[in-house]
Amino acid sequence: MDIATRVWNHKWKIDPIVRSLIDTDFYKLLMCQSVFRNRPDTNVTFSLINRTKDVPLARLIDEGELREQLDHIRSLSLTRGESTWLRGNTFYGKRQMFRSDFMEWFENLKLPPYHLERVGDQYELTFEGRWPEVMLWEIPALAVLMELRGRAVLHDMGRFELQVLYARAMTKLWQKVERLREVPGIRIADFGTRRRHSFLWQDWCVQAMLEGLGPNFTGTSNCLIAKNRDLEAIGTNAHELPMVYAALAKNDAELAQAPYDVLADWHEEHDGNLRIILPDTYGTEGFLKRAPDWLAGWTGIRIDSGDPATGAEVAIRWWKDRGEDPRDKLVIFSDGLDEDRIIDLYRQFNGRVRVSFGWGTLLTNDFRGLAPGDRLAPFSLVCKAVSADGNPTVKLSDNPKKAMGPAEEIARYKRVFDVGRQEAMDVVV
Amino acid sequence: MDIATRVWNHKWKIDPIVRSLIDTDFYKLLMCQSVFRNRPDTNVTFSLINRTKDVPLARLIDEGELREQLDHIRSLSLTRGESTWLRGNTFYGKRQMFRSDFMEWFENLKLPPYHLERVGDQYELTFEGRWPEVMLWEIPALAVLMELRGRAVLHDMGRFELQVLYARAMTKLWQKVERLREVPGIRIADFGTRRRHSFLWQDWCVQAMLEGLGPNFTGTSNCLIAKNRDLEAIGTNAHELPMVYAALAKNDAELAQAPYDVLADWHEEHDGNLRIILPDTYGTEGFLKRAPDWLAGWTGIRIDSGDPATGAEVAIRWWKDRGEDPRDKLVIFSDGLDEDRIIDLYRQFNGRVRVSFGWGTLLTNDFRGLAPGDRLAPFSLVCKAVSADGNPTVKLSDNPKKAMGPAEEIARYKRVFDVGRQEAMDVVV
Repeated sequence: MDIATRVWNHKWKIDPIVRSLIDTDFYKLLMCQSVFRNRPDTNVTFSLINRTKDVPLARLIDEGELREQLDHIRSLSLTRGESTWLRGNTFYGKRQMFRSDFMEWFENLKLPPYHLERVGDQYELTFEGRWPEVMLWEIPALAVLMELRGRAVLHDMGRFELQVLYARAMTKLWQKVERLREVPGIRIADFGTRRRHSFLWQDWCVQAMLEGLGPNFTGTSNCLIAKNRDLEAIGTNAHELPMVYAALAKNDAELAQAPYDVLADWHEEHDGNLRIILPDTYGTEGFLKRAPDWLAGWTGIRIDSGDPATGAEVAIRWWKDRGEDPRDKLVIFSDGLDEDRIIDLYRQFNGRVRVSFGWGTLLTNDFRGLAPGDRLAPFSLVCKAVSADGNPTVKLSDNPKKAMGPAEEIARYKRVFDVGRQEAMDVVV
Repeated sequence: MDIATRVWNHKWKIDPIVRSLIDTDFYKLLMCQSVFRNRPDTNVTFSLINRTKDVPLARLIDEGELREQLDHIRSLSLTRGESTWLRGNTFYGKRQMFRSDFMEWFENLKLPPYHLERVGDQYELTFEGRWPEVMLWEIPALAVLMELRGRAVLHDMGRFELQVLYARAMTKLWQKVERLREVPGIRIADFGTRRRHSFLWQDWCVQAMLEGLGPNFTGTSNCLIAKNRDLEAIGTNAHELPMVYAALAKNDAELAQAPYDVLADWHEEHDGNLRIILPDTYGTEGFLKRAPDWLAGWTGIRIDSGDPATGAEVAIRWWKDRGEDPRDKLVIFSDGLDEDRIIDLYRQFNGRVRVSFGWGTLLTNDFRGLAPGDRLAPFSLVCKAVSADGNPTVKLSDNPKKAMGPAEEIARYKRVFDVGRQEAMDVVV
């Protein structure tokens, strides 16, 4: 290495984890544009929740370092090249996916303040403000916490141990890729930004998938990596939309309608492969039963909780009931996937529907078994909208272990959405 | 990377494999000094022999490239720093291991010409000249052929495949190291120069052993790596001494005596841990039976062919017969070792004798199963003294599959050394 490079490297006060506002999931930007148009003035609070209590984040991560990373993110704004890419690139086959008014707003955006407090061995990290602004904190906040936790563990390891660690991680990932490449026609995208081991590692994982699967690797949810590596940016929408719409409902009737209002707004904006239903926010079964007919015309469904095979069977039955041919429909699996499950689900449903996978944490952060005491194993960290205009949000999902919100509100939602008995399943990551 | 580094890297006409005259095994230099004193004018021919006929070296390796590498080696001479190290360093606890007259000669040495010819799919590569000069070709010639074969395979692999390849190789080696580190008191040295995957890889393997085994990693046979990494240089003597001494014998009586003449010369020069018997050149059993009593006083025995446990038992019985306590004696295993065998042998003999290991090819070149078609698997390449002053050399060893020399000479040697039935064993590497 030359001296200048070395000196330059040592000049950094911190080693920033998130260095770009588009180091985020593509669906965040799609949703942000939708929110910017439809509900720009909603006041929303996002909150970081570590579901894995035995990972004592506040003991592992120095508060000062965490603040430096978050402050660095607040200093970021869209670069000219990033803006050009968002404005000029084709996403899902469509030019000018992002409207001029949204882009102008985004070009002038800096992320709003955060609130950080240590409570016991965990951090309380919340973001409160106008929905389109605070929602953009979710992914970078998660990525920062995940990577700082990783760094805390890596800090104690020697140069050689680190070499071996990454050699093992590479070997492990490549073994997965080699298994997946044996399944012709399989289609997988990277959904692993939020709980990645680190940015560089996610970038390597994307390269591995591209190298191993070629065109069967359909792209990455990470906009920065998609831009840098000239890949498709992948993603549609998430639970945050129905959760906030639902929280804003003034009565039970509006509440029951809220998830469909979300998709009605989406229907106006998007077509084709962007018309993907995420049906599980308040129970897949009931959502589909009460869905308006125009929703059956949408391209596909994303299955993000509950038993995935069951979810797919429910979807197939629903399409048939509504006179649609499931073979034209897309089922995207995105919950707790690893290569075995991917291959099983593919074999089970390929041909009956079009199958696709959004592979997350076990693509970009499978360090299980690689560090002493398994201290690099991924853990279940989420960052969710917890209130909207003063009302708490609720998520039920198809797995009661993933439910969130105040107990009385959960009960109300269960009643309104007619959610019966649900099977509890361990949350993998 | 900075521009200057990149430009510099592209300026090399070749990427030299051997860049130093001390990128060789330590025992070569010890033997060279002994030969330089005792038999300097012997005319010896060394010849490269590929025992693995299905590795078509001449199809894999371009003759021009091979010549460039060999020519580069001929351009090398001892650097000032290397000379200082050899003169000033302590080897086996001894200062000034290398005498001034030898060092002066070595400082002025350039390696003699080589003879290279393609015969079918193999190369005939021979070195003829004064013994102390030509003997120094053995290790670099082997290393060049091994690494050029590796490069031929690597040339067809992409950047990513290469990353995964080395990640896997590192993972594989580290798994071995982790198994070995669980055995307290085990003592292992690197003997893997000659059939290493590459210089850089050997250097990494040495670091891995050091990192994993700490002081239980006793050193490396490679002088350059020992110098660069401040490790012990390890090694004593090899078959080439008795083979050449035997070839120079004028009659059967002298022949029978030749292996002991070698050790008598060695006895004069060295003591302590350098007094290691290599008994298998013409059969261990007979060699020990007829050995003079002073040889039983030597420190240990290196077991380099045949069944290693049997060899060690033979040695133990011999020491006991000669009134020596085997627990004071050193047994060095150095043939076809991998971690399982190392651990087995250690458990079997630790406490009964002092046990040590010289781990070669499967330390520095275990790329088995790592490349398509297993084209990086190590293969059995040797470079041996084949004649001395016009007489063919013979090696029998304790494994008839390792025997070499003209058939009638093999028969004569078997008769003179009273070698009975031997068990044939596959040569691992």
